[in-house]
Order: sequence, then structure tokens, then C-alpha cells
Amino acid sequence: MTNNTKITLAHGSGGKLTHELVSQLFLPNFNNVALSQLSDSALLPLNGMKLAFTTDSYVVKPLFFPGGDIGKLAVSGTINDLAVAGARPMFLSAGFIIEEGLEMSLLEKVVRSMKETAAGACVDIVTGDTKVVEKGSADKLYINTCGIGIVDDRTNLSPSSIEAGDKIIVSGTIGDHGLAVLSERESLGFNPLIQSDCAPLSGMIGKLIASGANIKFMRDPTRGGLATTLNEIVNPQKYGIVIEEQSIPMNDGVRALCEILGYDPLYIANEGKVVVVASADDAVKIRDILREDDLGKDAEIIGNVVEDARGKVCLKTVIGGTRIVDMLMGDQLPRIC
Amino acid sequence: MTNNTKITLAHGSGGKLTHELVSQLFLPNFNNVALSQLSDSALLPLNGMKLAFTTDSYVVKPLFFPGGDIGKLAVSGTINDLAVAGARPMFLSAGFIIEEGLEMSLLEKVVRSMKETAAGACVDIVTGDTKVVEKGSADKLYINTCGIGIVDDRTNLSPSSIEAGDKIIVSGTIGDHGLAVLSERESLGFNPLIQSDCAPLSGMIGKLIASGANIKFMRDPTRGGLATTLNEIVNPQKYGIVIEEQSIPMNDGVRALCEILGYDPLYIANEGKVVVVASADDAVKIRDILREDDLGKDAEIIGNVVEDARGKVCLKTVIGGTRIVDMLMGDQLPRIC
Repeated sequence: MTNNTKITLAHGSGGKLTHELVSQLFLPNFNNVALSQLSDSALLPLNGMKLAFTTDSYVVKPLFFPGGDIGKLAVSGTINDLAVAGARPMFLSAGFIIEEGLEMSLLEKVVRSMKETAAGACVDIVTGDTKVVEKGSADKLYINTCGIGIVDDRTNLSPSSIEAGDKIIVSGTIGDHGLAVLSERESLGFNPLIQSDCAPLSGMIGKLIASGANIKFMRDPTRGGLATTLNEIVNPQKYGIVIEEQSIPMNDGVRALCEILGYDPLYIANEGKVVVVASADDAVKIRDILREDDLGKDAEIIGNVVEDARGKVCLKTVIGGTRIVDMLMGDQLPRIC
Repeated sequence: MTNNTKITLAHGSGGKLTHELVSQLFLPNFNNVALSQLSDSALLPLNGMKLAFTTDSYVVKPLFFPGGDIGKLAVSGTINDLAVAGARPMFLSAGFIIEEGLEMSLLEKVVRSMKETAAGACVDIVTGDTKVVEKGSADKLYINTCGIGIVDDRTNLSPSSIEAGDKIIVSGTIGDHGLAVLSERESLGFNPLIQSDCAPLSGMIGKLIASGANIKFMRDPTRGGLATTLNEIVNPQKYGIVIEEQSIPMNDGVRALCEILGYDPLYIANEGKVVVVASADDAVKIRDILREDDLGKDAEIIGNVVEDARGKVCLKTVIGGTRIVDMLMGDQLPRIC
């Protein structure tokens, strides 16, 4: 089916090879309407309501990093996948795959972190599973979380409602999570420490929905970063996106570390940010509602949906040039979530 | 919290140490009504209906074994957890953790097997996730499946409805799955091959529910086997269970291999069997409905709920003795599912 005969780390990057795996293997086999929408959550009509259902496995290395840990990440990530689908997150599952020999105290710390994160977002972890594999058959601890939410009646999020003239808003600085994990893993000792943005966004997104603003679509720019998320939004038949480099919020530490290491921050994973596509009329209102929340205090309008450059994401650079920003190819930072 | 400072393989056995982990770590932290029932699925009231929600990770080794593979197992196991909760399985998620270097053709084979098993049970796989870890950080492939079902209004399954005089019915031979996986893993070359019973039971259980028979409780005797499942059912305040060794259906190959290797078949995992607790009046009817289905053709009434021996499971042996059958301690067969 694909050109690769073996699975590579890039197949798990969230970028081009992940999309190839999904479109060439999973979609043709698990063929159904809900899956084919490829949104962050499957949307399932059920007894007159719309259920959102999502899954993610977490294999982040190391398990603890500045600003979070695998437990906080697993709970936040799944909550965010529900929230960006316009759903109120309600129930989570937790499936643990543990390497034999893991310190019990470490597992306790992760479980307490999951508990606190879930409680903070008013979500219950209602079902679970534990598997243990022999030493050397896993790397300490992997966690899968699935989530169920109910889609808010007031939303009608769909890429098909996006049109030229709409605005792109990002809820804050990009690149923090990926570089926080990398710094910890490689013991870079960068000072001040880069903190992961890992956090549940359901509260902030709930306020956005309640405002009645004309939101067309939302997505959280995790694996593959902002660049990959925007490439998932553009439409080859209808529209492209132009973003302004100077408008994209970024912490100085992230900017500096990216320059030193040669990473492009547009491709670095975020775990506490949302990208909103909205009608131009409501863009400022949305940005301001986001800014009222601590998790959205650095929100910015970063670009436009345009009729030119259909299917493409273009970046207007600070020095006045324009370059095409493609989907992530390969995997610059494996095991970031 | 527990006496162990490190996680051992036995913590994933489904036996005593798994229960200790759940009761001492997960329950006190993820404290909520749905979880505290510790049933195969969480039961969640939602808009006037009752949702069943369950998760399981699969780490079976090897990935392919006589009668099944990790894909068929992952889909069947989660379907069965919903079905024994009285729910009609509807939607599944699939989360893959893949070791770098896995043959693409092998992944394709597993995905096709998942597709066929899901289609056979009229269930859609609606959402998924893929993570890839470096060579040596997993053992080829782990799969998590979560499932959502709707609980049938006609059922009212609860351990609290069980009373002395009720009957225990098992839908067929025990021990097949565990020994099939073991034989393949250890290349025992036992002839004829022992086939795993791995299969989705939702069709057969659906017929049972539709019959209106007075079913009190159901559970699938997976990790920890029939012995552990029955120990989960007994109640220290109210009742015990007595089972008759000679009534327990077992294939000759399983019996012979257990004798050779010194395993107790009561503790061997099954992946296509259901244990039903029912009122005595309906026990024969239930057994006969099960027998009409190919997956239940060897169904037997194997014992009684009794007021004596509260909280205990007793086995009346073929030679006329009685012994107490405890929950699985340790883990005789790791990575069986």
C-alpha cells in the first residue's frame, strides 16, 4: 500500500507519513463516515445528541518535564481533542502499559497528576486497564486515554464552512511543549527552563462557544505543530492560508533554542494551544475572549484564509518574503507526546 | 500504598496484585461512582439512556497465534466487555503503539483482521491514533481499543441481584486462548494445535438478552481465568459459589497440556467465553440458547450460588473432594492478551 516496507519513527510524527498511513491503510479498512472526517474526535449521532469520541496514546520521553508529565499530558490531550470538536468533555478512560520494574512511587505520581488535571477540567476517569510487559519491552510507561464528550448544540464546526476572508487565530505562544520535552530529554540545561504549555483547554474553549462568536473550525496544533495543523485545514479546491511571521506569538527561549538547534518552531508540538478559524467580523472578539483566560493571554490573529494559493500555507516573513510552509516531513522530534 | 515498591508482571495478571493496584491506587485517585463499580464497562447515564464505556490495551506475544491475532483479539475483547455489561457495542477506537522497524505488511494483516472482526460484529472503528517508538522501546505492536455501547433497556445486570440458589453457566470450553498463545510462543508444536477461542460474543449475548431470561450478571473470564472471574463475583457478606469440576467444559488438548505443564485450567485466560449468573428457573433455557450459537455450543451449567462459604469459590472435584479456588496470585502466563 505505501512505499515504505517498514514502519519508521516518521510514521508517528503527525506529519506526511502519518497521513499516508491513515489515508492508505486505516481509512480504506476501517471505512465509515465518522472516521473519514479525520477530525480530532469522531462525531457520532446518538439518540438526538452528538457524541464526540477520541483516542490518543502517550509515549512521551521523559515521563516528567518542566510544566507537566505524561499523566497531565494524557488527560489534557484527550480533553483538548474533544474541546476543539466543540464538545464538553465528560468521561475519560485510562489504559496503562507498564514496563516491569517501574517504581511504584513514579506510577503514583503520574496517577495523582492525572487525577488533578481531570478534576480541574471537571472530567471523570471512569474506566481503566493495566498491562505489564517484561523489562525491555516498553520504555517505563505508556498511557492511552480515550474521551467522550457531548457536542454543544450552539456549535457547527466544519472545515466546509471555511471561506476566503476568514481569520486564523492562535491562542498563544507556539513551540513550548516540544522544546520543553526536548530540553529535559537531552539535558540541555537551557536557562530559564522552557515550560511545556500542556493544559486542558475545555474551560477556555467553552467560554468561546458560549460567546456565540462565529467560529468555523478549531484544532489543537500538537504533533507536527502549527504548520501541519494549517496544512490540514487548507483545501486544494477552495482556499489557502497566509500567515504573518511577525504576528505568531513565541517565547524568547523557544525562539533562541530553535535558532541554536536549527528547528523550525512552526513544526514544534504544542499541548495547550488552539487554532481557531473564524469569520473576520468576530476575529477580534474571539482573540479578546481568549486573552481573558490565563491560558490564552498571548492570543493573536495570525493570518487569513485566501482564495489564492489554494491548498497551500504561505508564510509572510518578517523581512518581507513569502514562503510555502509544507506539512511536516520526517520527524524532527520523536516521542514528544 | 502497596507493599511492592516496583511494578511486577503479576500486577498485570488480572489477579490479586492487579486488584490491589486498582483498589489502592486507581480507585482512591480516580474516585467516582462509575469506576467504583469495577465492572467490565463503566455505565454512564446520559440523556435518558445508559452508555457503556470500556478500555483495554493488548500486548499479546506473539502477535499471531492459532485462532487469532492481536487485531482480532483487540476488537473482540472490547466488544465482549461491552456485551457482558448488557450493552450493544457500537463504536470502537484503535490506538496503535508501534516499534520502529515493524514490517508494514504485518501491520496491514493486523488492520485487516480488525476490520473483519469489527464488521462481523456490526461495529465501526471510528477514531484512532498511531505512535511509533524507537527499536527496543516496545515489542513490535501494542493496540488499545476503547468501546462505546448502549445498554439494553431489558437488562438489569448487577452483582447485587445475585442470591443463593442462582446458577452459574459457562458458554463453552475453558483455557483455549491462554494455551493457544503459550503453545505458539514457546513453539511447543503440540498436535493437534490448540485454537484460541478469541471471538466477539455480542451476537450470542444479544440473543440471550432478547430471550427475556432472568440474567443476573455476566462477565467474560479473560485474564486470571474462570477462577478469578468467579472470585470477583462472590460476596463476603452474602454468598459463595460452588462449581462441579466434572461439569466444566474443556478440550482434551487443553486438559492434556495443563497436566504436562502443571497449569490449572481454571486460571487460564479465555477470550470468547461468557460466565452467566442466572436464576435457577432460567438456567436450562439460557444454556440451550447459548448452545444454539456456534460460539456457545459447549455451554454448561457448572455450579450454584450458595449461602455457605460466603466470599469463597469452592470446587467439587471429580474424585469427590472439595477445595477452595482462590483468585490468581502471581502470573503464570504473562502477555496473554
